[in-house]
Amino acid sequence: MVSESMYELGTKKSTIRTIFEFGRKRAAEVGEENIFDFSLGNPNVPTPEFIKNAVIDILNTMDVNAIHGYTVAPGHPMVRDALAKSISKRFDTNVTANNLFLTAGAAAAITITFKALNEKQDEFIAFAPFFPEYRCFVENVGGKLVVVPPKIEDFQIDFDAFKSKISPSTKAVIVNSPNNPSGAIYSKETLEALANILSDKEREYGHPIYIISDEPYREIAFDGVVSYIPKIYKNTIVCYSYSKSFSLPGERIGYILIPSEVEGFEKVYGAVAGAARVLTHVNAPSLWQYVIARCADKPSNIEIYRKNAKLFYDGLIDAGFKCVKPQGAFYLFPQSLEKDDYAFCERAKKYDLLLVPGADFGAPGHFRATCCTKTETIERALPLFKKLAAEY
Amino acid sequence: MVSESMYELGTKKSTIRTIFEFGRKRAAEVGEENIFDFSLGNPNVPTPEFIKNAVIDILNTMDVNAIHGYTVAPGHPMVRDALAKSISKRFDTNVTANNLFLTAGAAAAITITFKALNEKQDEFIAFAPFFPEYRCFVENVGGKLVVVPPKIEDFQIDFDAFKSKISPSTKAVIVNSPNNPSGAIYSKETLEALANILSDKEREYGHPIYIISDEPYREIAFDGVVSYIPKIYKNTIVCYSYSKSFSLPGERIGYILIPSEVEGFEKVYGAVAGAARVLTHVNAPSLWQYVIARCADKPSNIEIYRKNAKLFYDGLIDAGFKCVKPQGAFYLFPQSLEKDDYAFCERAKKYDLLLVPGADFGAPGHFRATCCTKTETIERALPLFKKLAAEY
Repeated sequence: MVSESMYELGTKKSTIRTIFEFGRKRAAEVGEENIFDFSLGNPNVPTPEFIKNAVIDILNTMDVNAIHGYTVAPGHPMVRDALAKSISKRFDTNVTANNLFLTAGAAAAITITFKALNEKQDEFIAFAPFFPEYRCFVENVGGKLVVVPPKIEDFQIDFDAFKSKISPSTKAVIVNSPNNPSGAIYSKETLEALANILSDKEREYGHPIYIISDEPYREIAFDGVVSYIPKIYKNTIVCYSYSKSFSLPGERIGYILIPSEVEGFEKVYGAVAGAARVLTHVNAPSLWQYVIARCADKPSNIEIYRKNAKLFYDGLIDAGFKCVKPQGAFYLFPQSLEKDDYAFCERAKKYDLLLVPGADFGAPGHFRATCCTKTETIERALPLFKKLAAEY
Repeated sequence: MVSESMYELGTKKSTIRTIFEFGRKRAAEVGEENIFDFSLGNPNVPTPEFIKNAVIDILNTMDVNAIHGYTVAPGHPMVRDALAKSISKRFDTNVTANNLFLTAGAAAAITITFKALNEKQDEFIAFAPFFPEYRCFVENVGGKLVVVPPKIEDFQIDFDAFKSKISPSTKAVIVNSPNNPSGAIYSKETLEALANILSDKEREYGHPIYIISDEPYREIAFDGVVSYIPKIYKNTIVCYSYSKSFSLPGERIGYILIPSEVEGFEKVYGAVAGAARVLTHVNAPSLWQYVIARCADKPSNIEIYRKNAKLFYDGLIDAGFKCVKPQGAFYLFPQSLEKDDYAFCERAKKYDLLLVPGADFGAPGHFRATCCTKTETIERALPLFKKLAAEY
């Protein structure tokens, strides 16, 4: 009657969804303020005032059919030009409108890129811990997700494990730094070592291996700048989103950046356009195109995330948890206090602490806790984490 | 290096694109006002003032993170509830929030529906003339598009031809009324005859055959109401878009309506959710969800289209063209004055009349002309159509 695989994908409850529903049930019983939901990655920094001002100014000054009309599929040339200038200035590079393809956020950007690159069950490598939707997106364009186990001491890359996973079928490597769920940022050294290995393998296999740099958390970096990977490795395709940087996750606006230096640039850009076409893309929402063009050089407000991450990290360490110090994004990824992270998260529910098991991200023995909550929620939760730790 | 099929889909110039580029070149040579571009289906009725007012009111009254935050994948329950109430009242039926899945416009709605329904190279029937992207969308979810030849005297359905195309592999029939490109609206009699045949075939084959009703032009009906197909045939899934009704094509907002009466409702809705997930859907753009919830009962302004269609139709008949009188949408689909519609459209270029060959829509010997242009453009073009006709 219908596609069974689609039915399963559409109805199987994710762990996060199950936790969310448990939280709603408990909130009704004990009150919203007594539920400590650290499961959802929803930005809580208010969308900046300059976004609202840009929307209103556009509505008051632009021709109404131009604001809301179709743009060409890659996005309005004026918008792409503005973004290209901003990127070029910021990273001292030479990006033009022709290197950009605007999408409905990062989920669309990465899925379109997977579909464009996949020829026949190509392999896409992800480093654990990783965003679980990668598997669903890669498999549904016909590719195969290959997972490199986590380097748990710092969540950089275990290069021996990585080398054992590369094969002639490797089409691309997914990099997500700052990382969901670990909060780690790849150091320049990590990225250079990665680039060296990939360059060697490209020569050995005689075909390009792309880095797909999934960068929704680029702006949320506590100690400075995140490396611009195309300058370290030329075959890098960047997937960007304004969901976190401007707190606009519901509006679905982002882009794919394919630098001209990418091997087969013209082929890759063309395939991205084709993949977009069959993946329901007509154009990225037009009003939001004009908004981001006007706000391209505006800063992100990350102070709440920085403050919450420090508070949460210090508190967990004090309570006896082991945790890699988060450098960005808005997550902590501590070790669970028993091997079975599902059992641990289940036990945490006793205190109404809602946590996501690390196994969901390919890193069992850990749990993810978001710090995009009210600071007060973290403050009030920390004594409960202490009580929980005391049970072990 | 990349997917060759995606590269081809992304780079092969469509006829309309080629015409568009010719138009730009000619406009630079002879001036914008001397180009009569009837090729693009871009709504030219200004987006209504109530849309702008709704956006500004939402920005001024709702919590900013609620406006721009993620919604659940099917769309915010409050929004779906408002739309369901509006639909139920209008069509005297009983739709609830649980029957709706909000999408990024109709292209997403139909592609997600194709993907949800397709099991294994299932057949989807389209009636010529039809929107050419149907082929691309159906084939790329693994289905097969089966085309019923046009009934050129009135662009209703040639039922003998239709019956010969139905098979046990038929999963769904695509209905697009008011029609792009013919401007025809299926009569109640046509729809009832279609429903009878489908019901018989469902019994014969022992499985449901769905109607996918693609309704971006529903509101643009010159002589009254378009039938609400779920009341005529229970296994009808409606794909709707606000692109044309509110002149919002760039914003990508629409929905899939799966009435509870649809056979396997729960399976279909679940498969739609799964298909959306792998087709880059996270949620329909959130601000636009809230806007359409507020404007659900507002009327569409179709007077320009009505006026232009009459003017254009009368003028072409006067010039000696044969044309089915358009009842809705914003297109005319006259017969070309020579059998080869490509040759005809090529000859029309001599007068800077830009027309799309009917063969692109599965109906050779015709051409499509849009009437979503300035009325003056049509007025000034009609003498040129007369000159063109005089050549034959």
